[in-house]
Amino acid sequence: MGSIQENENGRRGGGEEVILGVDGGATSTVCVCVPGDISHPLPILGRAITACTNHNSVGEPEARSMLKQVMLKALSEAGSKVSDVRAICLGVSGVNHPKDEQRLLCWLREIFPSHVKMYVHNDAVVALASGTMGKLKGCVLIAGTGSISYGCTEDGRQARASGAGPVLGDWGSGYGIAALALTAVMKAHDGRGAQTLLTRCILDSLSLSSPDEIIEWTYADPSWARIAALVPIVVSCAEAGDPVAHEILNTAVYELALSVKAVVRKLMLAGEDGKGSFPFVMVGGVLEANGKWDIGQEVINAILQTYAGAYPVRPKVEPAIGAALLALNLMLKEMEA
Amino acid sequence: MGSIQENENGRRGGGEEVILGVDGGATSTVCVCVPGDISHPLPILGRAITACTNHNSVGEPEARSMLKQVMLKALSEAGSKVSDVRAICLGVSGVNHPKDEQRLLCWLREIFPSHVKMYVHNDAVVALASGTMGKLKGCVLIAGTGSISYGCTEDGRQARASGAGPVLGDWGSGYGIAALALTAVMKAHDGRGAQTLLTRCILDSLSLSSPDEIIEWTYADPSWARIAALVPIVVSCAEAGDPVAHEILNTAVYELALSVKAVVRKLMLAGEDGKGSFPFVMVGGVLEANGKWDIGQEVINAILQTYAGAYPVRPKVEPAIGAALLALNLMLKEMEA
Repeated sequence: MGSIQENENGRRGGGEEVILGVDGGATSTVCVCVPGDISHPLPILGRAITACTNHNSVGEPEARSMLKQVMLKALSEAGSKVSDVRAICLGVSGVNHPKDEQRLLCWLREIFPSHVKMYVHNDAVVALASGTMGKLKGCVLIAGTGSISYGCTEDGRQARASGAGPVLGDWGSGYGIAALALTAVMKAHDGRGAQTLLTRCILDSLSLSSPDEIIEWTYADPSWARIAALVPIVVSCAEAGDPVAHEILNTAVYELALSVKAVVRKLMLAGEDGKGSFPFVMVGGVLEANGKWDIGQEVINAILQTYAGAYPVRPKVEPAIGAALLALNLMLKEMEA
Repeated sequence: MGSIQENENGRRGGGEEVILGVDGGATSTVCVCVPGDISHPLPILGRAITACTNHNSVGEPEARSMLKQVMLKALSEAGSKVSDVRAICLGVSGVNHPKDEQRLLCWLREIFPSHVKMYVHNDAVVALASGTMGKLKGCVLIAGTGSISYGCTEDGRQARASGAGPVLGDWGSGYGIAALALTAVMKAHDGRGAQTLLTRCILDSLSLSSPDEIIEWTYADPSWARIAALVPIVVSCAEAGDPVAHEILNTAVYELALSVKAVVRKLMLAGEDGKGSFPFVMVGGVLEANGKWDIGQEVINAILQTYAGAYPVRPKVEPAIGAALLALNLMLKEMEA
């Protein structure tokens, strides 16, 4: 190990081995730089943030350029250099297939020396690790702008559900909830559906005067995050007793619980009798306590009805730290093997 | 009237007054050039076609440039000149608000002399006119790549439903049907839904080997028409007895009928007792006879259950001709007034 130095920010760095953990969701990408040895709590030497790096959304050249930038920025924040990197773990939305993993690994090899350990996963994997201190065991549900369920067993079997983007019906995601709310406003306006408090609240929030103008608003910017940002309005309308908003949130809870149950069943995470215990990690803005109408708590209730042994975990560290912890654990496993 | 001349194609043109009728849908835009006097059947002097000219989809400069090109091409086909144009009727998807109409009218004024009569409508309006020989009375349902219901009364009251694009839940459209089918394949794959024949048929049709690859496929090209092109597969799976495909088509029929009924109710097209008679014009690939599973016939059945006086019309002329007929009718009305 190199000597420990203080950088300008009073942080260690320069010569000491570090690990990069990256979490790339549908809205933003976070990279943290942590020491290459294990300590608890893990000190964060550097942290950088950029926009969405899903290659499906922004294109591969743009995704790579942004991933490179955010990693170099976190390194620079830590006062570290590329040659200090011992391991990298990327958890990026858009990694849906082994060939996506391979492409990213090949690209990382062009930037970092060959001795650097590299791990590439879907962002759901590092979110799971953020709730299990780096262990890949249990099930995670992410519901932010997008949504995905992912699970892993100790012997390495994996499964996922949802996470296929807005065209393919992720109706429990923030985007899905908000799109259903906008649809409800259009339906109330043209006579296909019941009147709803959502109309006034959404029009006010978007500074529009008529539901007709929502059509142009949705086309004006294809960003899902912009649409997902309407979720708090749906929650507050449901809390105010609006039955249409209430129904939309119930649909979201049903869809989110359905995707978790599909993963738990496929991997038999609760054992053969369905009564076994497993961590159920919950990540993302949609699942955070919303006040009276708590989507996360409703999903927990729905899961516990089927799998009483599930124990809900709301991670105390962010998914990027989960990525770093996962890299540490995977390195340890490789050393043990 | 100018003298009638033969152009190179043996068509009349040059100096004779003509009318341009334009139909711009979610997939393509058609312009026809017809004589400025009324005759039956209406001879088509020129016809040109280009891609989607919805300003929401392709941007305003591109939409205008393409509209101008397609009109000039139809004129040139007819051997006519800009100075021969007596009237223009544009029916373009994306015209959802009076300000959309005004913008297009101002732009047309820059291209055509001030004596030219100009009419700008949503494409649903000219589709209605194609089934009523240019009269704005009754209800039209378009279900192609997108879907919309539109109705008009003799005293000029109008209403519409759906037609708000894929974000806003046009589930009866070709895009909507195909998106639900793709979602069903993803749900069957990850354990959220029942197995379905759609999986094999859609993967074969797209030359993909696994449902995971559908995610990348949907992102690769945002064109709705590409997704809507899967509708015949859904129909053939339903005809083969697949319950998932059958359910998707039932949902589409329900949504399409819902939007028609909303318009009929709002305008009281069937009178106060709901038994009055009105034309119900049906346009678009989704509503054309599909074989055993006939979406259009199912929609007719659903409408007739509520409004027995509706008489279904499948237009014998294309919507662009409807636009030209509408221009002729509107001009006549103005002359009478």
